[in-house]
Amino acid sequence: MAMRRVASTAARAFASSSPSPSSLVFTRELQASPGSKKIVGVFYKANEYAEMNPNFVGCAENALGIREWLESKGHQYIVTPDKEGPDCELEKHIPDLHVLITTPFHPAYVTAERIKKAKNLQLLLTAGIGSDHVDLKAAAAAGLTVAEVTRSNVVSVAEDELMRILILVRNFLPGHHQVINGEWNVAGIAYRAYDLEGKTVGTVGAGRIGRLLLQRLKPFNCNLLYHDRVKMDSELENQIGAKFEEDLDKMLSKCDIVVVNTPLTEKTKGMFDKERIAKMKKGVLIVNNARGAIMDTQAVVDACNSGHIAGYSGDVWYPQPAPKDHPWRYMPNQAMTPHISGTTIDAQLRYAAGTKDMLDRYFKGEDFPAQNYIVKDGELAPQYR
Amino acid sequence: MAMRRVASTAARAFASSSPSPSSLVFTRELQASPGSKKIVGVFYKANEYAEMNPNFVGCAENALGIREWLESKGHQYIVTPDKEGPDCELEKHIPDLHVLITTPFHPAYVTAERIKKAKNLQLLLTAGIGSDHVDLKAAAAAGLTVAEVTRSNVVSVAEDELMRILILVRNFLPGHHQVINGEWNVAGIAYRAYDLEGKTVGTVGAGRIGRLLLQRLKPFNCNLLYHDRVKMDSELENQIGAKFEEDLDKMLSKCDIVVVNTPLTEKTKGMFDKERIAKMKKGVLIVNNARGAIMDTQAVVDACNSGHIAGYSGDVWYPQPAPKDHPWRYMPNQAMTPHISGTTIDAQLRYAAGTKDMLDRYFKGEDFPAQNYIVKDGELAPQYR
Repeated sequence: MAMRRVASTAARAFASSSPSPSSLVFTRELQASPGSKKIVGVFYKANEYAEMNPNFVGCAENALGIREWLESKGHQYIVTPDKEGPDCELEKHIPDLHVLITTPFHPAYVTAERIKKAKNLQLLLTAGIGSDHVDLKAAAAAGLTVAEVTRSNVVSVAEDELMRILILVRNFLPGHHQVINGEWNVAGIAYRAYDLEGKTVGTVGAGRIGRLLLQRLKPFNCNLLYHDRVKMDSELENQIGAKFEEDLDKMLSKCDIVVVNTPLTEKTKGMFDKERIAKMKKGVLIVNNARGAIMDTQAVVDACNSGHIAGYSGDVWYPQPAPKDHPWRYMPNQAMTPHISGTTIDAQLRYAAGTKDMLDRYFKGEDFPAQNYIVKDGELAPQYR
Repeated sequence: MAMRRVASTAARAFASSSPSPSSLVFTRELQASPGSKKIVGVFYKANEYAEMNPNFVGCAENALGIREWLESKGHQYIVTPDKEGPDCELEKHIPDLHVLITTPFHPAYVTAERIKKAKNLQLLLTAGIGSDHVDLKAAAAAGLTVAEVTRSNVVSVAEDELMRILILVRNFLPGHHQVINGEWNVAGIAYRAYDLEGKTVGTVGAGRIGRLLLQRLKPFNCNLLYHDRVKMDSELENQIGAKFEEDLDKMLSKCDIVVVNTPLTEKTKGMFDKERIAKMKKGVLIVNNARGAIMDTQAVVDACNSGHIAGYSGDVWYPQPAPKDHPWRYMPNQAMTPHISGTTIDAQLRYAAGTKDMLDRYFKGEDFPAQNYIVKDGELAPQYR
């Protein structure tokens, strides 16, 4: 386990302040010198919002609320939202940082190239869940440890998914837009507004978030389906009230509503392409809070335009921030937001605490909670393989 | 029971086509002549939307899908959306209609004056739930029967309430508006976005809709409270997982989120006034799909402006349609829609079927399902007393 090795070999590690370049390349995964570490955090900037809520710890200004603690321990803590391009603030610190903290909401893309440049890097922490913005294979090859704050915002995301299902099924947005435009036309909403009750809802992926969603859907009296690598045991399945579907496309063809709850991996990238969408029910509603790149961007636009997809809602895009001309901003029947579902105030407090806990363990040479590891000892966690 | 009396006295009733005015005033509640009835329905107009969905039966054009059936039985069926002012289409038919079908979504206000003019009127049917647009005391005094399609859209409304709770708690709308405005500012959403989990949610009224809402809230792990005229039995309370609060204001002071689920009556009209709102938590979120007039309109606006109410969502207004200058359209942190929650396609099919069933029973002189009566034998149903 890379982290344990780092700790146990701390005594023979080089001082991080003056390493010789050649030794660094060779031994960097063994460096866990006691003393000052350079920790860099990349978070979204809040500007005037930073001071509006004392619990708003997830922004660059409030820096997870751990600055005082880190500095009191003698560590250097650089925080920036500036993450893109060769001249960005992050790039300046790549060569000598020991720990990089990132988030999925404002992802610093940790490419193989950046990893190669980061000679002192030991630990990549995701404050939140989902480390696909990191080149995990490159991280594994370089002997880095990658870890998330597993479970920190699964409830947040599952709640948000149920909200989006209801917003689409019940055709909320056209009604709200009437209100702010001074209009009143019940028919213009009602002709395509439905109850959720009785509809078939399928989740692609029934990991932590998918299961929390299914549990929350249970009282709505839907027909619940799930597709996953593995079937739940029968007791859990009965408790959740969802039926396993081994064949993804067969499940999709039955669903009125499809929710995407799978991580972005090489296997899931672009899996909702033109052909797959064509196999879904005409008028299907899709909720995707997982990752934008799981969808073929243009295929979603085309299907929304043709009406094959009757509504699409999610908070994930590729890339992020979504550029002004991202076509999902302009397609019909979308209920999109920026990447927000996992960064509620409650989630921020949890992932800030989880990040602090892992840093503390890192300084002490202790293991992280097992479920937090994404890359460890050169191996990827099962969901990313 | 007015309806049974109508039926049993059919033989001695006057022909509706040529009644003498004096006898009408005296005996109109006894008129249930066999033969042709004049039935008037007031529904919202759908224009181009009428043909977009074969199940869109709730609009004026599709007239609950009962025209053919009524006309095949020899009845006259007039349908109009035109319900306001002395020259409207409805007004022309008031003097000689036997049955008036209305809805809460596009309410024809059945005033004491209209009831007085409606010499042949026997039956007022609400296609949906909520008959507060009818002067129920005047209807009772005139010996009319008023009935709703009880339960027809309670699930629809409860689902919609849960959607609105999530939209407010999670601060959905500012995020969506960023998307359509070409912006990306996660902080501007996140600083006041929360999980629903762990929050205190109270419903004012725990009748059919309130209970369905509580059941759907249960897996969200909230602290659930309810205020009602009567406490549920302990078994139901445990099953639903909500705690009874006898004192309304005490409950309100504990709630992060308040949902209004009480009918509009003389007692509940304007019950959320400046004083009551001031007793609620600063930053409270309010969902009201019950009736707009339960709130003091300006008090809600003022509290949204001051931030005492951090979010207000509902689909009910007074009057309806809401005029262009209704202040709830322009107050901050509102997530309003036109009156829509009870008129999903699923709800329309149910309340159309329920209306047809009551008409059929009326023609046959049979009783309605007991829970449908709002005014019967000169008495109001308990929730309207």
